Amino acid sequence: MSVTAPLGFRAAGVAAGIKAGGARDLALVVNDGPSRAAAGVFTANRVKAAPVLWSQQVLSGGRLRAVVLNSGGANACTGPEGFQDTHATAEKVAEVLEDSAGEIAVCSTGLIGERLPMDALLSGVETAAGQLSRDGGLAAADAIRTTDTVSKISFKRAAGYMVGGMAKGAGMLAPALATMLCVITTDADLTGDELDTVLRRATAMTFDRLDTDGCMSTNDTVLLLASGASGVRPDLAEFEQKVTEVCADLARQLLVDAEGATKAIAIEVIGAASEDDAVKVGRSVARSNLLKCAIHGEDPNWGRVLAAVGTTDAVFEPDRLNVAINGIWICRGGAVGDDRAKVDMRPRDVTITIDLSSGPHTATVHTTDLTADYVHENSAYSS
Amino acid sequence: MSVTAPLGFRAAGVAAGIKAGGARDLALVVNDGPSRAAAGVFTANRVKAAPVLWSQQVLSGGRLRAVVLNSGGANACTGPEGFQDTHATAEKVAEVLEDSAGEIAVCSTGLIGERLPMDALLSGVETAAGQLSRDGGLAAADAIRTTDTVSKISFKRAAGYMVGGMAKGAGMLAPALATMLCVITTDADLTGDELDTVLRRATAMTFDRLDTDGCMSTNDTVLLLASGASGVRPDLAEFEQKVTEVCADLARQLLVDAEGATKAIAIEVIGAASEDDAVKVGRSVARSNLLKCAIHGEDPNWGRVLAAVGTTDAVFEPDRLNVAINGIWICRGGAVGDDRAKVDMRPRDVTITIDLSSGPHTATVHTTDLTADYVHENSAYSS
Repeated sequence: MSVTAPLGFRAAGVAAGIKAGGARDLALVVNDGPSRAAAGVFTANRVKAAPVLWSQQVLSGGRLRAVVLNSGGANACTGPEGFQDTHATAEKVAEVLEDSAGEIAVCSTGLIGERLPMDALLSGVETAAGQLSRDGGLAAADAIRTTDTVSKISFKRAAGYMVGGMAKGAGMLAPALATMLCVITTDADLTGDELDTVLRRATAMTFDRLDTDGCMSTNDTVLLLASGASGVRPDLAEFEQKVTEVCADLARQLLVDAEGATKAIAIEVIGAASEDDAVKVGRSVARSNLLKCAIHGEDPNWGRVLAAVGTTDAVFEPDRLNVAINGIWICRGGAVGDDRAKVDMRPRDVTITIDLSSGPHTATVHTTDLTADYVHENSAYSS
Repeated sequence: MSVTAPLGFRAAGVAAGIKAGGARDLALVVNDGPSRAAAGVFTANRVKAAPVLWSQQVLSGGRLRAVVLNSGGANACTGPEGFQDTHATAEKVAEVLEDSAGEIAVCSTGLIGERLPMDALLSGVETAAGQLSRDGGLAAADAIRTTDTVSKISFKRAAGYMVGGMAKGAGMLAPALATMLCVITTDADLTGDELDTVLRRATAMTFDRLDTDGCMSTNDTVLLLASGASGVRPDLAEFEQKVTEVCADLARQLLVDAEGATKAIAIEVIGAASEDDAVKVGRSVARSNLLKCAIHGEDPNWGRVLAAVGTTDAVFEPDRLNVAINGIWICRGGAVGDDRAKVDMRPRDVTITIDLSSGPHTATVHTTDLTADYVHENSAYSS
């Protein structure tokens, strides 16, 4: 299923020899049309990898024939030569598809600051082109894994069309070396502008609210391709909902597989004066190392929640803050509330509810705990 | 030495029974004058502990007779009752000194969200008052430790006067449960306004540039008291330099003793368009968990440095960034520079130099590595 669940798409995932060890490391996703409408969202980091600079430029036309993705190297901070490598990759895909490089997106993930082994990569593109099939979605999802322990795929059926997707990233829309890449496909018929609007809204509600370690990648890319092969012009609201569901499903899979995590933490902010305030507070709490350590230790430490809330400029009064952990309101009016012994911290899922008592708006930000395994994995990654 | 190095100050540190285990947990520092001029800087966190709210109010008069400090409980998020506890503590100090509570500052450090054991604390104030002496500086510095493994003290001689200080905090001007408290004394003769100006400048250059885990405390307090007992009206520039030296010395001691740290990392930003830009970039790099893990693993991972720089809005071009680690320029022009194998990562002190190639301004921010011990210490603190 994955990206080949909708009609009009073929995919492949092969071992091109980019990664040491012989695992799959190159994926190709091809849109056979009849439409080539597409949209993309990219990392907000000002230090952008070569493939991001390339794909942003390509997407300005609102059309994509294919996406080529590699793991085993991010091609970030590689200078003009790195950009030429990305260009050469797109040209190679264009050549094997007998098409134009100007409609080929490129995504890379892995270590920053190293050139890609271009001989292996370009010959991998040829191999992948030979293996393109309607069943290739799973192999493609497998080929983009780095520290991901499992492939992440999703699909949803709608009225006469489908939405499918794959993603990689052992973290959020951010970790600098656990880049998030995501390709979503549909056989519905939409324009590039419609896809752009829908994708921005869907990612703002899902991937953007995942914050596992506060770090922002140089390579994050989310692409949405529409083949139009079903012939269905979808209801836009329904389509947005389906794309959001696929994004949320993939985001959840990323969260559960985050590096070293033992807890999936939902930070639910209620009573906010605006949705922006709610997101801001949720993000600040999600980035508190001290809180994330406490949750790892199964300690319902609401004091660390308040300390994080207090660093924001959201509308609230300290003595009207209420905090519940897993449904027990252990902080009321900015001070001790119900007995903290009543909080069951054993489940993997932990919900922290923060009531700002300042309005009707809400938002939920997702994060994970901070563990010794996270430290270990990120201390040893490149050595 | 410590806070009793300058003339006109007495201090004591006693075991009041606030901490389980019988260690010293209450300190008293008294200014015998002739001057009582004083100034303070406090946490920017909007969730402020009761003693911070109290001491801010007291300091608005620009005078302090004494400071009482306790470890074993932060008295933060304790509601109106917590504020009454702080008030009662100040009244008790006023009573034993036969003075006014309106010139008594209170500082607390320890767990958030729990009331202080007031019987123990108030009787500890009486004990401390009986032990006040010109030799009490060391005992006072010992009494304010929480997870600190050593006492932090400093003093500097100047032309006819001295500056002394003590601090606690197993981290920066921030960790939510490793609050930084600092008391600095001098026997020079200055006004409250002069002290305020000097203290703000000195802390901005020292404690404010220490960022061990990005968390901001509810209790951080730095106080500066002048007795005038030397009779010397100091040169203000020299005085500012001495106070800055004491702050820098104490900040360095905090950094070296930060929870679980094995590396002291100096992030030196050069070539910035403004000092603000330099600080912003330094702080962003200091807060990158991924980078802090890499340094822990002795991996000179400049890609993670660039990824953190890229999240700021400082003036720079990605392809003009240069990064050196311990003097080796391993990133030049935003891409690979000198051989990373040349970087000696074994010393405890690691210097990361970031050249933004955008102007003449510089700043250095200090942080530590992120370790499994940090996770352990902060997972287990309150359990």
